[in-house]
Amino acid sequence: MSLKRVGILTGGGDCSGLNAVIRAVTRSAIITHEAEVIGIEQGFEGLIFDRNRKLTVAGTKDILALGGTILGTTNKGDPFEYRQFDKDGQLTTQDYSQKTIDNFKRLDLDCLFVVGGDGTLQLGYKLFERGLPVIGIPKTIDNDLMGTDYTFGYQTAVQVACDALDRLQTTGESHDRVMILEVMGRGTGWIALEAGISGGAHVILIPEIPYDLEKVLEKIRLRKEGGSPFSVIVVAEGAKEIGREAITSEAASTRLQGVAQLGGVGNFIAKSLSDRIDLEVRCTVLGHTQRGGTPLAFDRVLGTRLGTQAVEAAAEGKFGTMVALKSQEIVLTPLKTLAGIVRQVPVDSQMVHTSESIGICLGR
Amino acid sequence: MSLKRVGILTGGGDCSGLNAVIRAVTRSAIITHEAEVIGIEQGFEGLIFDRNRKLTVAGTKDILALGGTILGTTNKGDPFEYRQFDKDGQLTTQDYSQKTIDNFKRLDLDCLFVVGGDGTLQLGYKLFERGLPVIGIPKTIDNDLMGTDYTFGYQTAVQVACDALDRLQTTGESHDRVMILEVMGRGTGWIALEAGISGGAHVILIPEIPYDLEKVLEKIRLRKEGGSPFSVIVVAEGAKEIGREAITSEAASTRLQGVAQLGGVGNFIAKSLSDRIDLEVRCTVLGHTQRGGTPLAFDRVLGTRLGTQAVEAAAEGKFGTMVALKSQEIVLTPLKTLAGIVRQVPVDSQMVHTSESIGICLGR
Amino acid sequence: MSLKRVGILTGGGDCSGLNAVIRAVTRSAIITHEAEVIGIEQGFEGLIFDRNRKLTVAGTKDILALGGTILGTTNKGDPFEYRQFDKDGQLTTQDYSQKTIDNFKRLDLDCLFVVGGDGTLQLGYKLFERGLPVIGIPKTIDNDLMGTDYTFGYQTAVQVACDALDRLQTTGESHDRVMILEVMGRGTGWIALEAGISGGAHVILIPEIPYDLEKVLEKIRLRKEGGSPFSVIVVAEGAKEIGREAITSEAASTRLQGVAQLGGVGNFIAKSLSDRIDLEVRCTVLGHTQRGGTPLAFDRVLGTRLGTQAVEAAAEGKFGTMVALKSQEIVLTPLKTLAGIVRQVPVDSQMVHTSESIGICLGR
Amino acid sequence: MSLKRVGILTGGGDCSGLNAVIRAVTRSAIITHEAEVIGIEQGFEGLIFDRNRKLTVAGTKDILALGGTILGTTNKGDPFEYRQFDKDGQLTTQDYSQKTIDNFKRLDLDCLFVVGGDGTLQLGYKLFERGLPVIGIPKTIDNDLMGTDYTFGYQTAVQVACDALDRLQTTGESHDRVMILEVMGRGTGWIALEAGISGGAHVILIPEIPYDLEKVLEKIRLRKEGGSPFSVIVVAEGAKEIGREAITSEAASTRLQGVAQLGGVGNFIAKSLSDRIDLEVRCTVLGHTQRGGTPLAFDRVLGTRLGTQAVEAAAEGKFGTMVALKSQEIVLTPLKTLAGIVRQVPVDSQMVHTSESIGICLGR
Repeated sequence: MSLKRVGILTGGGDCSGLNAVIRAVTRSAIITHEAEVIGIEQGFEGLIFDRNRKLTVAGTKDILALGGTILGTTNKGDPFEYRQFDKDGQLTTQDYSQKTIDNFKRLDLDCLFVVGGDGTLQLGYKLFERGLPVIGIPKTIDNDLMGTDYTFGYQTAVQVACDALDRLQTTGESHDRVMILEVMGRGTGWIALEAGISGGAHVILIPEIPYDLEKVLEKIRLRKEGGSPFSVIVVAEGAKEIGREAITSEAASTRLQGVAQLGGVGNFIAKSLSDRIDLEVRCTVLGHTQRGGTPLAFDRVLGTRLGTQAVEAAAEGKFGTMVALKSQEIVLTPLKTLAGIVRQVPVDSQMVHTSESIGICLGR
Repeated sequence: MSLKRVGILTGGGDCSGLNAVIRAVTRSAIITHEAEVIGIEQGFEGLIFDRNRKLTVAGTKDILALGGTILGTTNKGDPFEYRQFDKDGQLTTQDYSQKTIDNFKRLDLDCLFVVGGDGTLQLGYKLFERGLPVIGIPKTIDNDLMGTDYTFGYQTAVQVACDALDRLQTTGESHDRVMILEVMGRGTGWIALEAGISGGAHVILIPEIPYDLEKVLEKIRLRKEGGSPFSVIVVAEGAKEIGREAITSEAASTRLQGVAQLGGVGNFIAKSLSDRIDLEVRCTVLGHTQRGGTPLAFDRVLGTRLGTQAVEAAAEGKFGTMVALKSQEIVLTPLKTLAGIVRQVPVDSQMVHTSESIGICLGR
Repeated sequence: MSLKRVGILTGGGDCSGLNAVIRAVTRSAIITHEAEVIGIEQGFEGLIFDRNRKLTVAGTKDILALGGTILGTTNKGDPFEYRQFDKDGQLTTQDYSQKTIDNFKRLDLDCLFVVGGDGTLQLGYKLFERGLPVIGIPKTIDNDLMGTDYTFGYQTAVQVACDALDRLQTTGESHDRVMILEVMGRGTGWIALEAGISGGAHVILIPEIPYDLEKVLEKIRLRKEGGSPFSVIVVAEGAKEIGREAITSEAASTRLQGVAQLGGVGNFIAKSLSDRIDLEVRCTVLGHTQRGGTPLAFDRVLGTRLGTQAVEAAAEGKFGTMVALKSQEIVLTPLKTLAGIVRQVPVDSQMVHTSESIGICLGR
Repeated sequence: MSLKRVGILTGGGDCSGLNAVIRAVTRSAIITHEAEVIGIEQGFEGLIFDRNRKLTVAGTKDILALGGTILGTTNKGDPFEYRQFDKDGQLTTQDYSQKTIDNFKRLDLDCLFVVGGDGTLQLGYKLFERGLPVIGIPKTIDNDLMGTDYTFGYQTAVQVACDALDRLQTTGESHDRVMILEVMGRGTGWIALEAGISGGAHVILIPEIPYDLEKVLEKIRLRKEGGSPFSVIVVAEGAKEIGREAITSEAASTRLQGVAQLGGVGNFIAKSLSDRIDLEVRCTVLGHTQRGGTPLAFDRVLGTRLGTQAVEAAAEGKFGTMVALKSQEIVLTPLKTLAGIVRQVPVDSQMVHTSESIGICLGR
């Protein structure tokens, strides 16, 4: 089919490479298909409240190396259950799906490219079921989406953490300290695992394997006895001690009720270790430095390929699918197969085995 | 089978991630299998001339972030046809294969890990056919080996080129200049393509697609007419004009016979363009900065996974194979399937299509 | 005078560039003066307890790009008041100065190079007064030493923070969030100021200017009203609210007595703001990533120049001095002028004025 | 005096930090002085041909981390001797100074900020003598301006070269090769010297010290005999052999007449060495990657401080001066003292001495 006018939105948390997708969709739609491109602002909110702007080749020319998303994004904005405060200050939920569909139709778009993670893609699928020509482009910094080898933004996040570990190694070694690095990963430990492996960590704690503090202490002691009194520990923000709830940094920084909740799991473990060993312990919390900033080449190429193939898929009318990296090619997968399944780190996976066979302690 | 003593050598050109492989083999052999590890120096030369040393966990502890290979490497050293000068200064060829095998046996090794590109792996296979327990670990900066999605070192090379392009973009734009970046790739254009896509290049010239200078000039002129008088061009060192031989930088810097051969294809194109357009042209030759230096996290993780799985394969007695990345897992492939096939960029591949559909000129 | 044998030690917190100093002292002493070089381990502890090793050109060849210090360092180890636990577990203080001096004499050194911050250099001066031929080499990550324009390690720390800010800017802008970055600086705000200026921060809070939370809130609100609902805040770890004590991260991670003290001032401000505004707030704590890792070229050159000139000063018998950068030259300054004066940010300095005149809020 | 309206232009070659200056001038003029800011495009050409635009806080908000100059720049455009081709294709020289002054007056500016190197600043001074209220802001990537400790852009250029050297070290060592890095510096060797010192170069060749190839060969041979068969050489593009003219890359890439002139001094030395030693030689030409791209924090801070103080100087009516970094402060210097003096590397300077005393060969 011939594309005349397409729309694109980005939803959920931002990550490096979103602008590469936007640029690729814009360029290939305009250059190859002579279509118009409409950028919808702030995720689905831009459809609900009709906020959008025209995207051009000139207007997207310098965004490849730029972090974030020029369209803005939000974690709110579910068209089916939009949450807002009413005039009495009560939180209410509204179904804006028809308004969303009406606005979409008024824009006269041949396709809607939905760039987002699990939640955003499922909303895209629900709109597809309601008749919208949706194509999904998978995005999650955690690399925990089913159906695609890698998601863009992930390698950049791992690299930021790896760079931090390189720095912590030398200062830890000079001072005989235990250095803790808290990285992203509320539900899955992929970033922690790959960052830890690449940065030479001695201990990696991930949400999938609740940790036993004794095992961590034993590792530190063994290293000290072996002549290396320093240790480097990577902790995913969703890591939790056996028998305890996770303490995420987000809780600490946004929903906290009192001083007691300052700091996340990294600081918590720092304190737990300090109480038990005669070594100084220091904690670094990378936070959103993993999300923002210029993407690695890998993520720029991946974003560009996904964006371009998404436009091809649209031109072929293959709606209700998402583009995905499989081995060396971008392929199409039905959107419905995603269905809210998060790809966690299997506790007996090759990556876990690799970590343990080179001597990394996973807290078990 | 139980591993008691294993050997490892690195052959061919170096690239980022070799030390991650050496470290992973050493650690997993010692920590998981309680084996000894012998590092063979300077590729197969170390077997021929019996140069090697014991590798330890302590001795490999700081090498993960280090470029190059602590074992040294060489492009020479074919045990079957060893080339050397005799006492009369004549180049002679010697068959040292039996000596190699004898030395191997004297080392009493249960396995030989051969880390190298197409040539080195084929030599490994020939030794396997002669009875040696060889396991291959694929390495090429060009990502042009069959049987594996990515080779380590490649992403680092692409990133170095991408970083250079980010820098050239702004200076090119400020001055309305044509900026040329010559990158590695004598036979294949993968680095040039991915670097060019990630760095927003306007023209990418690769060995697989002989370029038509007119097409390049047309692209530059169109950009100028459209209000962008600057252009950024990525050239693989093996790129060639239609009807001409390739002019590689190596020729320029090592085998050159006179001043006439200074500089490679980047400078050649700079000159060709300067003669034809009224814009300043500048050329950067990245050379070996793409090979050396600290590896990206991606390459460290890949090297570590390959090394660890190679040791597993050895423990299971699966000789005559190589470890390879397929989608998200490290798998085993028979060494013999490699057979000297270089994975070139297919001229109608998805990557080529992606490039052209976002407006990149490939010189055709 | 002719140098036959010199010693070098590094004391206090580590920072990038220490190894450049060690390498330069070693090379220039050996190459230019044919002297021997003794590396004293773990600061003054190595003199007290006679732990040292010979340094060579070969042994220091790969350390220029390496963070930390190959000699180790410690914040403990005052020879005049050495603190240790006696057999009853009581903390006692011992005067080891004579033992230190005796050990020094037994090493038969013509000069002792003392690389350290204010405290370490003062100890060096006290030993000089007791007759030791000491030359000081100033080191502090905070750039708050009198008598030198820049100290090595400082630019690297600022750069690490600046890189983090570049990343936080884009994610903050995409999400309309308030991003907080906690950087080093317990007593002085130089890192925070230069990092904040270079990273485009909207608010910078430093120890020298106790902050008024109302001013910070006003800045955030004004930005929001002006169409920029996101803000980036840099906080030195020693920043404090008007009328409050400082809450340092160290307290949080090492001397903490209960969960209540998890997290430092960055998290504290995150919480304070979260309670007052309707924007999400996120906090990144860089911690020791600012100390470790490969030094910038600036710090490698500065360390090399200081080390080389220190050896020259020794050859000329100019003991009791320290080498320092003044404008474009390394000069000598009497060690005694240091005298425990920390160079704080003057509240009406040019740097402060620059910050405020481009619209940065300093919390006052 | 009260500033109502100021203008700014950038001239000469671009370098990292120009946008920091533009942003600082814009912000401090608008925020602190409530003045308007006019950006003059393409250096003095924008005054001659009346091309300019209004600069705003919003319009300059994302440029701090951006390389190049948003105003464009040119090496042409001398208002007193403007060179252009007449209708017969003859190169003619025109005096546009009065037109320049008239255009300036029509813009009704209280001050003209001239950001540029030696040439541009001298033109600014000539306009000041003709009555224009000019304030200079020094810029040169080569750090060879009199009157200022550092110019912005310089540290970034040194860092790019240092990063390249870190990469070349490991690949050189793995392969026993001679690695050459050609860096900027047509007339002065500061970049080569500081890059070489920071990157552990074994040989540094600068324009100020014509090199003796025998000395270079001797150094390489001595290293080989000492067990290090690899060497790393840094060459400024203006380096020249004793008794020969310089062969700059620019000549090679822009004014070249035939194949004979491909490549600059780096490739020339590569060939010269290849002919004389039994080692492989490789050459990397960094070219404009040193000019473009995101500035280091150092250059962003320096640019911001210079821009802000220039506005202060304007507000105080101190025209005919330039702002300059002296030790830790920005000071004012009369523009006339510049007078075309380039600050070369004195052949007996401390930096040269430092290099040689740690064993670096300077080719003499």
